[in-house]
Order: sequence, then structure tokens, then C-alpha cells
Amino acid sequence: MKKRALVSVSDKNGVVDFCKSLVKNGYEIISTGGTYRLLKENGVDAVEIDEITKFPECFEGRVKTLNPFVHGGILHRRDKQSHLDQAKELGVEAIDLVCVNLYPFKETIERTDDFDEIIENIDIGGPAMVRSAAKNFDSVIIVTDVNDYDLVIDAIENEKNTKEFRRAFMIKAYEHTAAYDSMIANYMNERFNEGFGEKQFVVGNKVMNTRYGENPHQKGALYEFDKHFSNNFKTLKGEASFNNLNDLNGAVKIAAAFGDENAVCISKHGNPCGFAIKDTLLEAYTEALKCDPVSAFGGVVAVNGTVDKALAEKMNEIFIEVIIAGRITEEAQEVFAAKKRIKLFEMGADNLILANDKKDFKHIDGGFIFQDADKVQDDEVKNAKLMSKNAATPEEMKDLEIAYKVASLTKSNCVVYVKNSAMVAVGMGMTSRVDAAQCALKKAKDMGLDVTGAALASEAFFPFRDSIDAAAAAGVKNIIEPGGSIRDEEIIAAADEFGMSLYFSGIRHFLH
Amino acid sequence: MKKRALVSVSDKNGVVDFCKSLVKNGYEIISTGGTYRLLKENGVDAVEIDEITKFPECFEGRVKTLNPFVHGGILHRRDKQSHLDQAKELGVEAIDLVCVNLYPFKETIERTDDFDEIIENIDIGGPAMVRSAAKNFDSVIIVTDVNDYDLVIDAIENEKNTKEFRRAFMIKAYEHTAAYDSMIANYMNERFNEGFGEKQFVVGNKVMNTRYGENPHQKGALYEFDKHFSNNFKTLKGEASFNNLNDLNGAVKIAAAFGDENAVCISKHGNPCGFAIKDTLLEAYTEALKCDPVSAFGGVVAVNGTVDKALAEKMNEIFIEVIIAGRITEEAQEVFAAKKRIKLFEMGADNLILANDKKDFKHIDGGFIFQDADKVQDDEVKNAKLMSKNAATPEEMKDLEIAYKVASLTKSNCVVYVKNSAMVAVGMGMTSRVDAAQCALKKAKDMGLDVTGAALASEAFFPFRDSIDAAAAAGVKNIIEPGGSIRDEEIIAAADEFGMSLYFSGIRHFLH
Repeated sequence: MKKRALVSVSDKNGVVDFCKSLVKNGYEIISTGGTYRLLKENGVDAVEIDEITKFPECFEGRVKTLNPFVHGGILHRRDKQSHLDQAKELGVEAIDLVCVNLYPFKETIERTDDFDEIIENIDIGGPAMVRSAAKNFDSVIIVTDVNDYDLVIDAIENEKNTKEFRRAFMIKAYEHTAAYDSMIANYMNERFNEGFGEKQFVVGNKVMNTRYGENPHQKGALYEFDKHFSNNFKTLKGEASFNNLNDLNGAVKIAAAFGDENAVCISKHGNPCGFAIKDTLLEAYTEALKCDPVSAFGGVVAVNGTVDKALAEKMNEIFIEVIIAGRITEEAQEVFAAKKRIKLFEMGADNLILANDKKDFKHIDGGFIFQDADKVQDDEVKNAKLMSKNAATPEEMKDLEIAYKVASLTKSNCVVYVKNSAMVAVGMGMTSRVDAAQCALKKAKDMGLDVTGAALASEAFFPFRDSIDAAAAAGVKNIIEPGGSIRDEEIIAAADEFGMSLYFSGIRHFLH
Repeated sequence: MKKRALVSVSDKNGVVDFCKSLVKNGYEIISTGGTYRLLKENGVDAVEIDEITKFPECFEGRVKTLNPFVHGGILHRRDKQSHLDQAKELGVEAIDLVCVNLYPFKETIERTDDFDEIIENIDIGGPAMVRSAAKNFDSVIIVTDVNDYDLVIDAIENEKNTKEFRRAFMIKAYEHTAAYDSMIANYMNERFNEGFGEKQFVVGNKVMNTRYGENPHQKGALYEFDKHFSNNFKTLKGEASFNNLNDLNGAVKIAAAFGDENAVCISKHGNPCGFAIKDTLLEAYTEALKCDPVSAFGGVVAVNGTVDKALAEKMNEIFIEVIIAGRITEEAQEVFAAKKRIKLFEMGADNLILANDKKDFKHIDGGFIFQDADKVQDDEVKNAKLMSKNAATPEEMKDLEIAYKVASLTKSNCVVYVKNSAMVAVGMGMTSRVDAAQCALKKAKDMGLDVTGAALASEAFFPFRDSIDAAAAAGVKNIIEPGGSIRDEEIIAAADEFGMSLYFSGIRHFLH
């Protein structure tokens, strides 16, 4: 008996060839509007949908396929005689393959704010057919992705059209409709409820399974929202682990926070243990490494530019686990070739690339907390208010800016000390700010780093003057923090007492 | 002109009264199968769907409403003469209200593994009507929630049925279908793809907006998966902030990790700065506080039991920002009444309650990493392998267990020191393990805490013997860690040198 395929696509790529192959394999094509015309123009024989529905397409296309002859044809069970009898009695003929992709809602909201046009691009008939066909995957192939056409034809031609094969397409179909409606709901909430609707949908497309999760007994995977990783994250050597991806995230955000400057960030467990901006990336890396070469061991290095042979050779002196850069030259890759455990990733661009997601979220037991993403605005440091008698020089302002931005991207409570555009000390992730400061300064001392003249930033206000006292004792000259402590006056007095400059930005940047 | 309402519900709560009110307000009811029968039984006049569709319900209910008279009635535009003319010509009558809720997919997968039954409970016609009516919210009210019936009747009766009113229901409708298909897709991926399908859907229901996000310039909200917060999280005083919720999460997980034992965890920024299990909660709190009373200032206290008056009075001696407990007695609440800034939450149960989510995820720029949740199994410490000559006593084993579990719930890299069931030192969130150990021990010393005889746990292996040397110098007697360093032999030798016990669990518990 002749099989029937219902084909109604918004994205028409490849559909003509696909239908030709279906016809060659004995399928009769049923089609709608634009798809039908395209097939006809290309000499593919097809039946127009209203011959099946016995009802005209109406309301400017709002109702075409929402019809019992279509849905009965898809949905009736071929394994039940009662269904087969009823189909015969009602004149409902089986549909064995449904190829549908949906009105381009995403492209529409990216193109226009016109609400009528946006509403018109919510597909109603399409998802209904996709969902019907998926439900009856026992007997029906549901194709929603233009990239699957070859696979489907291959299955039909080579007796691979098994229930398991169709089941995979069923899952893909519900993923397709779920993602579509999630996008609609999120869009509406973004437009009318400031992005915080009654339901929140976080939808990811799998980039890859990781070897395991945070620990070997946990499975893990990377999902992306759009195509950030698919487009910008190229693996040159090794394989990114779950923890690598987390750590990379921290390092890349910091190294990419300064436009196209020659910035290098070394991080461990997502927190920076080295950072510098210098005239060359080689210098920047060399200076960044000085901050904490012990923690850098086995760490992540994010390079906001191209890793060349000279930089690669310098990096190769210690064990770095992960390098991510705008580019890594072939010569540089050769330098690392002998090291088994090093992993190399590049973005295929002059600099590191950020997705700059507008929203941020954290899992907590039972749900998640969701928020606008944090981002330091370019003018925060420039517009920070001088609270002390002394001011910073322009060079020192640059150190303050670096310290401030790095601090905003380092786990709270944190303090960041920067001198000559290089981080010389950092304390983070501590439950007390003065502990973070003391640990940072002790470590700098142990490393033989001179903090004299450094700039200090704290991502939240200093609650007491003790951190200022400690900073002064270490030789810190300039401080920036949000301000806002009830003891701000004491803190300002302490800064003046030591002849420091002190700036308040007025904006806190907790990161947990 | 008479209005028409299409009512087809799976959850029949309240539907009879709702329809009675609709009839009273001049609506004609169109209904299907079970809903129709229920209405008839209760004396509500209704038209059966096949009078509208001019087609019989078929294939055991698989096709009922997928019909142009239904969808044309919903979808045609009332503001376009061409649509109105076509409707008239085709005999399509307007449907002005659609009340639909969907086949109980969730209840079905919770009840059975029978795949046929599960597939049968994927609603096809329902979502199509919901989506149609939502698309045409300009003219149609779409009701998907039994809790909205009164609101809808009120709007109809009191001229509040505005476009804005219907728009809110439109958003809710797409949230409804998006959540439904997300659940189907996630279920299928859980069943056939080990929970890691090509798309991943994280769907939350809003519990509340928080005053702001992690920082004042960010908006934030709490979303829950099921009803964990709605059912178990009661606000007695104050309002949980975004950061409170994050911090609470860490503290509650730790305090609830020991069954119904009298455990108290004090935490700051999600990490523990105090923990103890004692015969009474008052003792447990008192001991927990000793670990780091400085960090405890402004912290979170999670009490795995009931806070009574005596405990409240003890807690009231310093400034605690957040208390969460199984219960907080009225007398205890009175103790805190005078303190403006303290926030009180309770679970309304004898102990703290965990949702124990099976999955875990983290946002990273451009997407998220998703994994099986980590959980220490009850037998990990019991089954840990003794590597040293000396073994721990049963009492010391209890300290090892506490240290090990707390370490698994503390940010890496971490070390946890426990003595007599109370944490006496903790280092966390550091890029180097030996730094964490040194900071922890220095702090314990500053606090005048005696670490002699303590148990030490590390959530990941010690890479070098330096941490063991430092532990021995501080008087630590028993150590547990996963093992797995290439220098394990040196570490075992160090433990033996100092006469310590050393256990390897073989299981790492990184937490980032």
C-alpha cells in the first residue's frame, strides 16, 4: 500500500530533495500553501491539503491542518482493528510521515517589536501535527529538523525505520515543541513581566556530554542557549571536563572584561590566581603568573588574543591544564603537543568572545534563584566618588579599574590588589573580608611580591577600618570599594590618615 | 449575541460551578466527553462537541476537537471583516472562552512505568485549543487553571474582561503548554537518554520575587520545581533575599545531612563557619558558634529541629541575620521580636526538609552545565579503607563522618576539622588545599580552639604531605580523604609517622 507523507515546512531548505526521495520510495506527498507551491514548481507531485481535509484553508492560513482527516490520519492506531475499522468508515486515510517545522517565532522577535506580527508568527497547526505524530511514533515518523532528511531517507531505504528510530524522533519532536512554547512564554514574560513571569524556562541545547560531572560518579553535559559554544568554542587538544568548563567561564569572563587589551587571566576553581594587562601577551602572562605560581599549577589560562610560539614556550614551563585563547597558532600548538594532559581551546577570533547572557541563575535545593546578570558598567570606576583628600594618578586609576573589574568577577568576599596593571594579591571566597585581605597579603609576602603602591578593590564595602589598616601596612596606596558601611566615616578617616586615595563606586558586585 | 465557551477539562474541580456562572452570564457551553457528562449530571445545559465539529469523536478519544469548526471558531479575527465573512460562509461560529486543562501526564508518570499508558496521557487536542485560544487572546479568554475560575467570572460580570486581562491569561496558557511539553521531553530523555537529552528543560514556578538579585541593581526571583518552597518554607519574620536563599541552601543541606540528629550549621555566603551535633540543640548551637563567632555575625543558622525559648535567647546574644529551623516556637519568636533585622523561617516540621533534587546545574556564560546531583552515600565513611597502621575509635569515626559530610557540602578546595562532633576549623573556597588548611588552622589558633585530637576531612585528595604535616603539628589525630594522589604513599607514610589514622573513601566530592 502507498505510504503518505504530510509535508508543511516554514524553513524550506532541502525540502524539495527530501520529497523527491520520498516519492522515489513510494510515498504520496500531502502538502500545504507555500510548501505545496514550491514542490509543484520543482516538479514534485503532491496533493494539496484541502483535498484531504475536505475543508478550505481559512482565516488567512490560521486554520489549515487542524482537521480530523489530518489528525485522524496521523493518530489512529494501526495495531487496533477498531481504529482501522473506524478510519475506513470515516474515510480517514493513514499518514505515515509528518515533516513539519514551525513558523519562525525566534527570527520574528529578533527582527521586530510589532506585536501583531509576532502573534501571527505563533504557529498553531504546526505544533499540533508535530505532537500528534510524535504521540503515534509507533507508526509515524515525525521529522522536525531539516538536518535529519538524509537520515530519514536512509532509514526508509535500508530497513532502519524501526520503532527505536522513530522514538528518537518522537523525543526530538517534543523537545521541539517544548522549546518553541518556552521561547514564546519567556518572550511574553520578558515583554510584559520584566523577565520574571510565573514560570521561568531555561532551555539548553546539548553541545556535548562531559566525561563526567563535578565528580566521577556524576554524569554531566554542557548545554548552550544559542550557539555560543558551537560557534565560538573549538577544541584543539584534549577534552573539556565539567569542571574545566566552570573554571574556563570564570577565567574567560575576566580576561575578556577589558575589550581587546592584552589581558591574561590564570584561574583555579573559577577564581583568579593571576591577572595582568601588558603591552604583549607574553609579558601579561609572565606578570600574571607571578601572583600565585603555586595555585597556577594545573590551572586555567585565558588569553585575550593569540597564543604564539614564544608565549606557548613560556607557558610550557609549568603544568597548565587548560589554555583558552582567541587563537592558538599551529606553531604554538606544536609546543604543547608533547604534553599529554594539557587541553587547548580557541575561539577562532582575535580575542576571547563572551555571550554576555542577560540572565543568571543558580540551582538551590528544590528550585533555582534567577536574576538579571551582573556586569560592571564602563563608567563605574570613572564616575566613582573620591572620598579621601588624596587622589589617584591616571596610571593608578587604571590599576583601580583593573582591580575593581576583577573583584566583580571573583567569588565574594574578595579583595584584589593590582600594581602596574598586574594582580599582586587576591583573597576570595572567604566568609570574612578581613580574612580574605589577610590571606591575600600573607601570600603576597610569601611570594616575595611587593604590594607597595598597589591599588586595592573590594567587591562590597569594607565593614571596618581593619582592612584599610592592613592594606596601609602592606603599602597599598589607592582603594576602591562601593561604600555604604555605617562606618564609612571611619574608613575615610583611615584612608586619609595613611595618605591613601579612596573611591566609592556606589555599586556592589557580590558574586557567590 | 450569545457568547460561547468551550470547556474540556481533565481536572474537573470547580468546573460545574464555573459553567453555571458562565451560563448565568449568557454563555452557551460546548463540552466534550467526561466534562459534558458531568455538566449534564449537574443540570448544566451544554452542547456536545460533535454538534459543533460535525464529525464524531473517534479513535477512542484521540481525535475530538482537532477540527476547523472548533479552531476556526477560536482563531478567526473578529476585527477583520474578511474573517467574519468567511466564518459566516463556512458556518463557523465564534468561541469566546476556552477552558481546558490537560491530560495528567505528571500524575501518570508518577504512578506508572507503563509506556502505553504514559503515551496515551499525552494530550494532543488540549494543548492545540489552549494555544489557539492564547494566540487569539484579542477576542478569547483562555483559562487553564482551576484556581482562576472566580477571577474570570468576576471579570465577565464586572466589565474587567479587558485585553490586558486576557493577555495575562495568554501568557499563562503558553507557560502551561511549554511546561507540559518540557515535562514530556525531560521524561523521555530521563527514560531513554539517561537524563541528558539533546535539549534540557529547567522549568520553575515562581515562589516570589526577591527584593533584588545578588546586588541591588539586579532583579531576582525564586522559582521552585515542584512545591518544595510552597509546602515547606514558611516566613515567620522578615523577607528572604536572593543571597539569603543561596546561603540558606548551603546551611540547610549541611544541617539536614544527618537525619534527625540535633545538628546546627552556621554559615556565611553559603559556606559553613560553624557546625555541631550535640545532645541538645542549645548545646549544638553553642558549640557551633565557637568555631568562628566573627564570621557568624550576620550569618545564617540552620537548626535541624525546633528553636525554643532557651535556644532563641542564646542566639539573640549576637546578630544572626537568618534563622531557619524545623520549627520556631511562639515563645522563641517573641525573643526575636525586638530585633528588627533578624529573619525567621521554618519548615513546619520536626526537622529540616530537603527536596533532594536529582539533578544539579550551573549557569556559565552562553549556557549551563548540567549534572547528576552529588550526595554522600551513608556507607562511604563506614566503608572507607584504613590506610594507616592506627585506626580511629568509634567516637573518632563519628567525627570523621561529620567532617567528611560537611566537607562534601563546603566549597572546594576545603578542609574540615571536627572534634567531639563539633567543627573546630574549616578552610574553603581556596585555590590551593594547603592554603585552606593553613588558614583554617591559623584561625582556630586565633580563636583559642584546641584542634588536638580532631578529625580532618578533605573533599578531594591531598596532593602532598604538607597538609598532613600541618595537621599533625596542630594535633589532628584522624584523617579521611578520597585518596588517589600519585603521592598517596608519602601521605600514608606521613600519617604513620605521626601515629594518625588515615582513611581513603575512594570518592571525591568537589563542590564549586
